[in-house]
Amino acid sequence: MRSSVEVGLMGLGTVGNGVARILTQQAELIERRLGCPLRLRSIAEPNIEKHRGFKRHKIRFTQDAREMIDDPAIDIVVELIGGIHPAREYLLDAMKRGRHVVTANKALLALHGEEIFQVAQQQAVEIGFEGSVCGGIPILRALKEGFAADAISEIRGIVNGTSNFILTRMTEEGLAFAEALTDAQNLGYAEANPTLDVNGEDAAHKLAILANLAFGSPVALHEIYTEGIERVLPIDIAFADTLGYRIKLLAIAKQMNDEIEVRVHPTLIPKDNPLATVRGVYNAVYLVGHSIGESLLYGLGAGGAPTGSAVVADLIDIARNILKGTSGRVPPTSFERRADPALRIRSIEEIHTRYYLRFMAQDEPGVLSKISGVLGRFRIGIASVIQHGRKVGGHVPLIVMTYRACEQDMRKALSRIDRMPEVSGPIGLIRIEGHDD
Amino acid sequence: MRSSVEVGLMGLGTVGNGVARILTQQAELIERRLGCPLRLRSIAEPNIEKHRGFKRHKIRFTQDAREMIDDPAIDIVVELIGGIHPAREYLLDAMKRGRHVVTANKALLALHGEEIFQVAQQQAVEIGFEGSVCGGIPILRALKEGFAADAISEIRGIVNGTSNFILTRMTEEGLAFAEALTDAQNLGYAEANPTLDVNGEDAAHKLAILANLAFGSPVALHEIYTEGIERVLPIDIAFADTLGYRIKLLAIAKQMNDEIEVRVHPTLIPKDNPLATVRGVYNAVYLVGHSIGESLLYGLGAGGAPTGSAVVADLIDIARNILKGTSGRVPPTSFERRADPALRIRSIEEIHTRYYLRFMAQDEPGVLSKISGVLGRFRIGIASVIQHGRKVGGHVPLIVMTYRACEQDMRKALSRIDRMPEVSGPIGLIRIEGHDD
Repeated sequence: MRSSVEVGLMGLGTVGNGVARILTQQAELIERRLGCPLRLRSIAEPNIEKHRGFKRHKIRFTQDAREMIDDPAIDIVVELIGGIHPAREYLLDAMKRGRHVVTANKALLALHGEEIFQVAQQQAVEIGFEGSVCGGIPILRALKEGFAADAISEIRGIVNGTSNFILTRMTEEGLAFAEALTDAQNLGYAEANPTLDVNGEDAAHKLAILANLAFGSPVALHEIYTEGIERVLPIDIAFADTLGYRIKLLAIAKQMNDEIEVRVHPTLIPKDNPLATVRGVYNAVYLVGHSIGESLLYGLGAGGAPTGSAVVADLIDIARNILKGTSGRVPPTSFERRADPALRIRSIEEIHTRYYLRFMAQDEPGVLSKISGVLGRFRIGIASVIQHGRKVGGHVPLIVMTYRACEQDMRKALSRIDRMPEVSGPIGLIRIEGHDD
Repeated sequence: MRSSVEVGLMGLGTVGNGVARILTQQAELIERRLGCPLRLRSIAEPNIEKHRGFKRHKIRFTQDAREMIDDPAIDIVVELIGGIHPAREYLLDAMKRGRHVVTANKALLALHGEEIFQVAQQQAVEIGFEGSVCGGIPILRALKEGFAADAISEIRGIVNGTSNFILTRMTEEGLAFAEALTDAQNLGYAEANPTLDVNGEDAAHKLAILANLAFGSPVALHEIYTEGIERVLPIDIAFADTLGYRIKLLAIAKQMNDEIEVRVHPTLIPKDNPLATVRGVYNAVYLVGHSIGESLLYGLGAGGAPTGSAVVADLIDIARNILKGTSGRVPPTSFERRADPALRIRSIEEIHTRYYLRFMAQDEPGVLSKISGVLGRFRIGIASVIQHGRKVGGHVPLIVMTYRACEQDMRKALSRIDRMPEVSGPIGLIRIEGHDD
């Protein structure tokens, strides 16, 4: 029996700090679970200032990650540098030297997951990446193991805390997007450069990982239709509220036979849907399985402590394999790679859903009739209409809720309506989820 | 490499049927995850009528469970007979013959868990019991693995679907307990004998298992303070609503240093608490961890398909160990057994909480002053009072919400108030959870 499992940590940013703290402060708890110590042997961090907080522990410090990769005493290397380069190279090199690895790098996995998982399997080393999606929510472990007996047909996730915080502030305080974003930045919930969070890209990274694990088929980032929350207006939130909905940025994946849909966009969901009550920086993943029915996992999606906890849970998992001298118990993406071709991914034009549409239209008779005429010609049925409110530059908002329609038809119809002289400015379109039809 | 892992199933009731269905219908999906077939080799069920549904599959049938235990070709025995005897003997015998086992028998584990887990470890066999708590929610796996790096301080669970269905009907339709129970029975959500569900005992079984896994210390069933929902009145639900609360049957476990609290009782929780929105037969477990903060897992807690999915997920987990020739990776109760003494369990008299109190009092001046005087003498502060409504036999309901108080003080105060001539009938007491104080 080994006397300890040795960990090397690359990167002392927010999550790296969380991991180092948990490994040092919860050492006794972890040992009680594992049966032997899980020791933080060394930290690689170029910024010497950051070494300070952990100096009193017997940890080796280096500024050079390569030195750590070459240390044969290290069993598991944790990559928390972030970014694509040199994180990818470090991870691959560590695995090629026989080290097990843990990462929370969603961008890296979304872009290079296939390569990284393949090297892990070739080298018979473990790769843990629970921290890459929804920090404090053990959703990847649930997909790989908890729901292993089930065919998952649908995932809908609030997976970006920054966007959800902004939408919550817009909903509860009536703020505009820019104001709510400034709030988020002041409170430390948004980066100085919040682009990846608010344009949906971060959510798409996570969706690529989730869909791969749920359906056992790789999903490339460019195949995910992605739309951010920048164009959601306070009036959309107000009208949605009147109609009984909340607006959330959802990451959606659905399987229908041999095809899947993967998309990230602002979405109207009924207020009584469990996802509608997820406020602030919280994340949640709702899923539907053939046997389990509806399920939801909720918690903090980011931050050093929750994500650090996920990373250390991966370390414990891998350490258990090391202690038992086994590896490859669970394939990294939950399924043995399929011999049959990957599932076909539908383009956004192929999806069918309900829509919320916002037109700025001249306040005169006949406009609604013209708009509904065009929609009708493209087989788009109208469920309800709201036509009131103050004039904005001679135009009033006209809100149309549709029945289920095909996105391609919708796009054609809207390009016609866009050319109508009675309609001004950009048309607002928000997809609706959470109805049974 | 093995060509298959062989399963023997005891008991073809609701969950047994669900398991047999999943193993036969999802065989391809399971094989893609596991890398080899997970074969349902035999079913032991005394009722021959029940064999019919699976006759076309190549499954051996027996009426004698002992025959299955003795079959050396079986790797994993699934016990879904329920009850204590002979389930306990079958499970122990199977393990002593070197079979791995899976069970969903919460009563058995709550009563004999220590013995059963000990035999599993002595025999170096695996025991899976995810199906024993909240069927479709992978909460045990989350406690054992997903949150393995975290110190859990608190669990609050809606873990009995029948009670939650009844309380939901009482809340939404204004029904009395007996009417809602009849509803539940007619819809198949309650047994003909619903005692264990509505008196909180079933929830206590589950809490014993949850607390053991969360805190790494055994909790005996008799140490759990248990109160059912039979005495919750429609007026309690209505007053709670007015005050901004819902009433739920909660299973509560908290750790404070070396002590724990474990109790099951009807509870007032604020409407904006995520548990308040869990309706009907759904279950949910809310937990607080040092690193993860607040987390919630939500899903169906019972039924053949959700619980069957949990049982088969355990089978897949154990099959992975069999294929790798390993066992004992994760201790059955998540912690290596502690050498230090078990955590002390507080008695109900020692807890501190807020209270909702319902008195039927004479509608005359001075009564409130007398009642609040007694409460004050026992250091119980009053947060708010509602005194209105129609007379019932010359008495009106008087609702008192208290600040945090000690249960022992509360009991003393109430026994004094109970003797007051102005107060008639039993005093209603419901504990409050979900405030930060």
